[in-house]
Amino acid sequence: MSSDAPVDLEAALRRIEETWSPKIVARVNDTEVKLARIEGAFDWHRHPESDELFLVHSGRVRLEFRDRDDLWLEAGDLYVVPRGVEHRPVAPAGAEILLIERSGTRNTGDVETRRTRDAEWL
Amino acid sequence: MSSDAPVDLEAALRRIEETWSPKIVARVNDTEVKLARIEGAFDWHRHPESDELFLVHSGRVRLEFRDRDDLWLEAGDLYVVPRGVEHRPVAPAGAEILLIERSGTRNTGDVETRRTRDAEWL
Repeated sequence: MSSDAPVDLEAALRRIEETWSPKIVARVNDTEVKLARIEGAFDWHRHPESDELFLVHSGRVRLEFRDRDDLWLEAGDLYVVPRGVEHRPVAPAGAEILLIERSGTRNTGDVETRRTRDAEWL
Repeated sequence: MSSDAPVDLEAALRRIEETWSPKIVARVNDTEVKLARIEGAFDWHRHPESDELFLVHSGRVRLEFRDRDDLWLEAGDLYVVPRGVEHRPVAPAGAEILLIERSGTRNTGDVETRRTRDAEWL
């Protein structure tokens, strides 16, 4: 699927009001590209059906894991959390991120919390 | 698949010597994320098996099409060329780009030219 016009990431991020609610901005085959604004600590979860790529647009993000050392991602860093690996992103001072994952992947993965959202197109 | 360490896009781009030769920096399920440095006009081609997302990291890129108006992408813009659509990217003053497409997608798609490359991991 293609957008009719290019997507300006900066402008798109400014249109996102709710934190922790990724919005779809592009689809490539069966894969979606999403943008999110995040702040604080998210809920622990895993995505059994999809790897999940994090690319930090602004700010800093700490990826916490149950079974390995935490990782800090700075702006311009990307990292792939393999499918099935329990994790939670934490952005103490806030961050803007781009996500790449299989279409239909839900933000809280295998758990349902008050912050569970089905991603919609921005 | 996951990298063991975060990938710093700036540092990764600096390690790419050849233009028009995308290098893989991440895999998300059956999808690859590639980085490329480009300059001038590429060869006309299409990808019959995959959509192709362009995200401009630096510089400006003109996407030319046979069947629709050209598009200019500025730094921070992304656009998806649908599978099967003939196109060629042009970066008159040079640009750095990130690509998202199905694993195994070749840079010149359905044609073989002197610039055809099978993407390798950076």
